[in-house]
Amino acid sequence: MSDTPTPSDGASEFRRLWNQLAPVGRLSNGGYRRFSWTPEHARLRSWFVEQAELRDLKVETDANGNMFATWGTGDDKAVLTGSHFDSVPGGGAYDGPLGIVSAFLAIDRLREEGFTPSRPITVADFVEEEGGRFGVPCLGSRLSTGAVAPDKARSLTDADGTTYAEALTAAGFDPDALGQAPQPAQRFERFVELHVEQGKSLVYGDRAVGVASAIWPHGRWRFDFTGEGDHAGTTHLTDRRDPMLTFAFTVLAARKAAAQEQALATVGRVAVDPGATNAIAAHVSAWLDARAPDEETLGRILSRLDDQARQRAVKDGTEVAITCESQSAVVNFDHRLRDRISELLGDAPILPTGAGHDAGVLSTELPTAMLFVRNPSGVSHAPAEGATDEDCGTGVQALATVLKEFTR
Amino acid sequence: MSDTPTPSDGASEFRRLWNQLAPVGRLSNGGYRRFSWTPEHARLRSWFVEQAELRDLKVETDANGNMFATWGTGDDKAVLTGSHFDSVPGGGAYDGPLGIVSAFLAIDRLREEGFTPSRPITVADFVEEEGGRFGVPCLGSRLSTGAVAPDKARSLTDADGTTYAEALTAAGFDPDALGQAPQPAQRFERFVELHVEQGKSLVYGDRAVGVASAIWPHGRWRFDFTGEGDHAGTTHLTDRRDPMLTFAFTVLAARKAAAQEQALATVGRVAVDPGATNAIAAHVSAWLDARAPDEETLGRILSRLDDQARQRAVKDGTEVAITCESQSAVVNFDHRLRDRISELLGDAPILPTGAGHDAGVLSTELPTAMLFVRNPSGVSHAPAEGATDEDCGTGVQALATVLKEFTR
Repeated sequence: MSDTPTPSDGASEFRRLWNQLAPVGRLSNGGYRRFSWTPEHARLRSWFVEQAELRDLKVETDANGNMFATWGTGDDKAVLTGSHFDSVPGGGAYDGPLGIVSAFLAIDRLREEGFTPSRPITVADFVEEEGGRFGVPCLGSRLSTGAVAPDKARSLTDADGTTYAEALTAAGFDPDALGQAPQPAQRFERFVELHVEQGKSLVYGDRAVGVASAIWPHGRWRFDFTGEGDHAGTTHLTDRRDPMLTFAFTVLAARKAAAQEQALATVGRVAVDPGATNAIAAHVSAWLDARAPDEETLGRILSRLDDQARQRAVKDGTEVAITCESQSAVVNFDHRLRDRISELLGDAPILPTGAGHDAGVLSTELPTAMLFVRNPSGVSHAPAEGATDEDCGTGVQALATVLKEFTR
Repeated sequence: MSDTPTPSDGASEFRRLWNQLAPVGRLSNGGYRRFSWTPEHARLRSWFVEQAELRDLKVETDANGNMFATWGTGDDKAVLTGSHFDSVPGGGAYDGPLGIVSAFLAIDRLREEGFTPSRPITVADFVEEEGGRFGVPCLGSRLSTGAVAPDKARSLTDADGTTYAEALTAAGFDPDALGQAPQPAQRFERFVELHVEQGKSLVYGDRAVGVASAIWPHGRWRFDFTGEGDHAGTTHLTDRRDPMLTFAFTVLAARKAAAQEQALATVGRVAVDPGATNAIAAHVSAWLDARAPDEETLGRILSRLDDQARQRAVKDGTEVAITCESQSAVVNFDHRLRDRISELLGDAPILPTGAGHDAGVLSTELPTAMLFVRNPSGVSHAPAEGATDEDCGTGVQALATVLKEFTR
């Protein structure tokens, strides 16, 4: 990398701007709740407009609610960067906002160098990336590409029964205009999203910044285990049809199958009916989140789990039904772009990720890349998610280097 | 047994009276919700008064809300029978009401024979036996014996936050008078409760009626499994501290430990935090219901489970804390009474039970016995709980035989 600043410069610049966002939506445990179209979201978006105006960037908000701040003019397609402000419930501070804050700082860095881009550079805030409030992740980017129909988006509801259309109206948008925005490929030449790493590959590799290779194929499956409710204090073990046993077996089997395939499988949500201490369950529903390096492996894990759960159900006298609730194909980021960025950043390591991102959605429309910044805990979507100020400064410099390369 | 009627007589008599209660609190799935001090409960208690008055029995309600209908007069202590009307949520029709209906029919049977009891016979309805609304089982009988303090009872709350004191007031009782009722041993000479079997011992033994030997010692323990919340899509398996795994292992270990000891162990209730499909759980709480033939065996099961859960927690990088929420000592029903009843009923089988009952509470105060009626499904606390009309008729005759024996 050329023009590497002293690390302390980048770190303190980063901290100054980052501190402005730190209190917004912070919970008592250090986590964050920044749901789309809430007062916290509005504060974050006002801050975006202020920062853009301070830098004399042109601010536009499209019909889907996504915001864009652009440096430079002309008819050439812009290089897009940025990320999102919204969080999962109780999530961390960095997933999303790091990409927006870094984008503003990268523009500052390029200006300080006296650089003038040959084509515009645009900073984006995509709405409802996490799906934390309305359940569909990457909703803003998916509306832009047409991957989600406006009708479907309008009818999504949050936990209180508020529809997406109602939330948009309350925020001053016209829900009938959803989808009536330019396609990303019409306006943007490429997209480079900077993101906190959601894992420890960079910790293990001792590097501050990496580049994404792919987003693993992933999906959600609901397992319904049905048995027979009965009295916990009087029913002989041999007379029971206890779905909790089949469920527990399946949780452990999912972990084993994922370990064998070097993949990921998680059961993090379960509902038990009737759910009383002295009652054998009649029904257990559990949700499996599974991700693997390729679709074949993911299919193999599900098929093995299906077999094993059914065999165990026979033993327990229960029944199991498996429903796929969503499934996303593999995203392979543009290879040439990825390799060029890695080289530009001094052979930055190339890492896959299991998480979905707006960059994954846009990758079907235009060349797309992601930069990752080291996360000491490896944790994300939880309060421990983070990055050092030094690494964030290095991330800003890396993003500046990449933006400069594609706009020189 | 002397005076055995033709089965069809007893069956049709039973069915006629039983049908009067069948609609009260019935749910669309055939189960029942008959919570204490609700309109359903009031209808059942009005029916109790009507039936008592039809039979010219003297009705009294004590300060704890328990109702008594007495046949015969005099200063001698009465022989007590009866049971309770309240149900668990979604419970069956028979647990409780069968003992009250059978008691009225047994009195009819004795009168038809021209029998006059030498001491009074009293039919009881004990309130809140299931603890389905206010959480403490056998509340009415425990208030009578002093096993639950009136202050504690008054402050119990239901799921809507209504206190037991408020519910009593709404039902026309003075909550300040709780506990101000005669001790059962002052009024009653012995107690014989008839109950539907909650298991299939009588099915396997091919007998319509059995006698209780003991109520197994039992308890409830809360297991708190703590790990670290994280992103399900990005956290390497080796970096996880997933409490769902430790929980699932413990569910299966509890079942194994109970099977080895010929005891019962059930996990029917679980709470997961944050409980999101794409989040590794940070915390899982699960409730274990465990029952065994004796206290030593129960202790051994808990101790083994404690060891195994802790070992697994080390493997999973999680922590486990176990809290005993309630524990009940073994109840051994009066041996002489039990054997005499078994003999009287043609060597009726003698069975243990894992379930608590008002008879268990009163057994510390006076000689107490229980009769069980065969339950074809073995299921209880669920819609499939039941007994044939023929077996119920046989149960009525058995109860009449027993009441006659102790009041001749």
